[in-house]
Amino acid sequence: MSKNLFYLFLLSIILPSSLKAQDDNKAIIKNLYDNALTNKQAYNQLGLLCEKAPGRLIGTPNSFVAIDLMKKYLEDLGADTVFLQAFSSPAWICHSASATLLLDGKKIPLHIDALGPSGSTPKKGVSAEIIEVMSLEEVKALGREKIEGKIVFYNRPMNSTYFNTFRAYSEAVDQRVWGPDVARELGAIASITRSVNSNLDDFPHTGSCHFKDEKMPAIAVSTNDAERLSKALKTNPHLKVNIKVDAEDIVTHTFNIIADLKGSEKPNEYLVVGGHLDAWHNTQGAHDDGVGCLQSTEVLRLFKQAGLKTKRSLRVILYMDEELYQSGGKAYANYSKENDIRNYFALESDAGGFTPRGFTTDASKMNLEKIKAFQPLLEPYGIQFINAGGGGVDIGPLKELEVTLSGYRSDWQRYFDMHHSPNDSFDKINFREMQLGSAAMASLIYLIDQFDLAE
Amino acid sequence: MSKNLFYLFLLSIILPSSLKAQDDNKAIIKNLYDNALTNKQAYNQLGLLCEKAPGRLIGTPNSFVAIDLMKKYLEDLGADTVFLQAFSSPAWICHSASATLLLDGKKIPLHIDALGPSGSTPKKGVSAEIIEVMSLEEVKALGREKIEGKIVFYNRPMNSTYFNTFRAYSEAVDQRVWGPDVARELGAIASITRSVNSNLDDFPHTGSCHFKDEKMPAIAVSTNDAERLSKALKTNPHLKVNIKVDAEDIVTHTFNIIADLKGSEKPNEYLVVGGHLDAWHNTQGAHDDGVGCLQSTEVLRLFKQAGLKTKRSLRVILYMDEELYQSGGKAYANYSKENDIRNYFALESDAGGFTPRGFTTDASKMNLEKIKAFQPLLEPYGIQFINAGGGGVDIGPLKELEVTLSGYRSDWQRYFDMHHSPNDSFDKINFREMQLGSAAMASLIYLIDQFDLAE
Repeated sequence: MSKNLFYLFLLSIILPSSLKAQDDNKAIIKNLYDNALTNKQAYNQLGLLCEKAPGRLIGTPNSFVAIDLMKKYLEDLGADTVFLQAFSSPAWICHSASATLLLDGKKIPLHIDALGPSGSTPKKGVSAEIIEVMSLEEVKALGREKIEGKIVFYNRPMNSTYFNTFRAYSEAVDQRVWGPDVARELGAIASITRSVNSNLDDFPHTGSCHFKDEKMPAIAVSTNDAERLSKALKTNPHLKVNIKVDAEDIVTHTFNIIADLKGSEKPNEYLVVGGHLDAWHNTQGAHDDGVGCLQSTEVLRLFKQAGLKTKRSLRVILYMDEELYQSGGKAYANYSKENDIRNYFALESDAGGFTPRGFTTDASKMNLEKIKAFQPLLEPYGIQFINAGGGGVDIGPLKELEVTLSGYRSDWQRYFDMHHSPNDSFDKINFREMQLGSAAMASLIYLIDQFDLAE
Repeated sequence: MSKNLFYLFLLSIILPSSLKAQDDNKAIIKNLYDNALTNKQAYNQLGLLCEKAPGRLIGTPNSFVAIDLMKKYLEDLGADTVFLQAFSSPAWICHSASATLLLDGKKIPLHIDALGPSGSTPKKGVSAEIIEVMSLEEVKALGREKIEGKIVFYNRPMNSTYFNTFRAYSEAVDQRVWGPDVARELGAIASITRSVNSNLDDFPHTGSCHFKDEKMPAIAVSTNDAERLSKALKTNPHLKVNIKVDAEDIVTHTFNIIADLKGSEKPNEYLVVGGHLDAWHNTQGAHDDGVGCLQSTEVLRLFKQAGLKTKRSLRVILYMDEELYQSGGKAYANYSKENDIRNYFALESDAGGFTPRGFTTDASKMNLEKIKAFQPLLEPYGIQFINAGGGGVDIGPLKELEVTLSGYRSDWQRYFDMHHSPNDSFDKINFREMQLGSAAMASLIYLIDQFDLAE
């Protein structure tokens, strides 16, 4: 037999069987999608979570309502094990926040909310002149002389010309994250940040900020009111605002929820999938990140209903506290270290539940190529890319344990209209869009378990 | 100079200039997108159209309100010419429609609407037993004996497992388009069609049906009520429904709106872009197809504001009557024939204004390849494909004049939740998603004019 003939002979054996395997995988993936697109259980549960436990920030009563609700849900889905992984963390409870523009003897209420963990004001609030700035650099350049005793108002809008709104978000969000502390260090008595929102509307969008030493009252104002405030300042530069924040710092004992479906060959290796259960005090947290939690529980439901046995155990984690101190993700990474748990792969959904776009992957070059090779199998369902990129805040701490990470990415055009605001409510969830994400996540995890990563 | 050296020399001349041209095109496209994503004029005008002229079906008072509103808008945009292209057409006016389930002596109102052009009933309506079927074939198989005197109820749902909802729509819509006439021919006195809707809700979705000879009352029922009706029939097969429709057939004199921006080199060749101005009697027609109209007027505004001179004339056409008899598109094709108008290329947006997906193109093989080659320039803005496919109902009649056709395609997951129902309202429009479409359409037309099609 000539060399060429031999290869042809070899090909005739290999090709049909590999084609057969490919057809099998296609059929398994189709089955996952068929189930996802015809079963409303997770969608309905998301509705319940949003209704019964809005504002479920770590340490709040509603965070414990959410934990009870979702633990029971995972038990009812028939996970092999469901348990609460306990940890302690600082937390911050917002009781109330308001702000009033003092203009020509009139008091005009503004659409605001407290950033977390804003400091509190005295009961009557703090009042001062406002100084509008467009960047942290501008505050620093103005210096203590101009800033001391003032309320600093950060008003740089998101750049709406970017196709990728996450890019625009990342370029604007320093005003919220670092802005309050930069102002405080120069003697400001409070700060106002324009909502990091791609739209002009009346919703205040909250979010986290960092204080190095002491805290200060820090709020976000709606984009519409930011525009009004800026305009009013042009004619009246000595405009004053009164800000009231009533919040407290506590230490809480809380939990991540962990649910496992036992693997058939390597039950001690885990395919981790999750989202974060907490949500800001001003929102139902439908897209951020109730939907990520329910898409993750769907992976378990879909595997179980399809009778699909993975070699490794599937582990669904609903993390508590992504928003404030990112304590849930850190707690699970510590728990993994202490108990020598082998997390084989970790997937997170925390970028909205809109129509699918793709996955970003934080992996070795070889594993990135391996995972990218699955994209053609998911392309018929709208997965357009598997690219290098971050996994997510909750699974981030697993990186130092050398876990391959991935993040599910849905369409980003609408996300920042809702993000961290009362506008992020269950009615913004589309069943089909949510479930195309659930099935994409289940399919990716199935393929990784089936074909293995490089060691 | 050796041959290879000569080619290298040639390349050194051509390459930089073609790279330069490519950079220029990238910059022009970016400029179009930047403007689209920061200008709310078209979005606001769409809101006005939806508010002032909902239910703008051909021949209705609101269709003329819409024509006035949009003609003035195009004049204000600074088109070189705006004119009304007149034509006559049959039309159908729906005054009212209702249906009541007669159950255990109770009258339970159903969420229904008349299909166009449904026949009318006597004032007290028509009442009869219902016979539920899942297909036209089933009605034919049952035959006159079982159908005569009955109300036929088509209840086959859209297949929700398809990724492409347009495919599911096309497989279910025969029950609405041909179902009434098939039932009538076998002696039915009326028909009810399950709304061709991908969701379970209370919105009746209307649409067109065809009658060969005589007409009959024909209605659509909401998917929720279709489910309830089907369930009730299981326990009570002799259930009766009363249907009332009050509608009239008229002949109307109406108009397409045509606005031109004169080309610099070949002003008598037209780059046509359009959507249809009419909308069903039960809807604001935001996604179908107010958004297509405003995306088309945006092409003109964007070219004008960028000072972008096309070689050929840009022609925006807002067609009257896509929904009922497709008379506007036919009228423009006839007008083109009679006046020997050279339509160089025609683009339609009539598939919703959601986040962008791509373009379908009905062109010669060579032109399809030429147009496909533009996709990489639009990919950074979410245009994932330029594929072979239909252009649209309004530009379809231009095919026999050998015009290259194309249709803009936005994400299809939500479209049929809204399509032809009161749920298709302005609040479902997202500014960024709409404008990514406007800029994609402007870019494609610019590129085609710039690089020419094959003759």
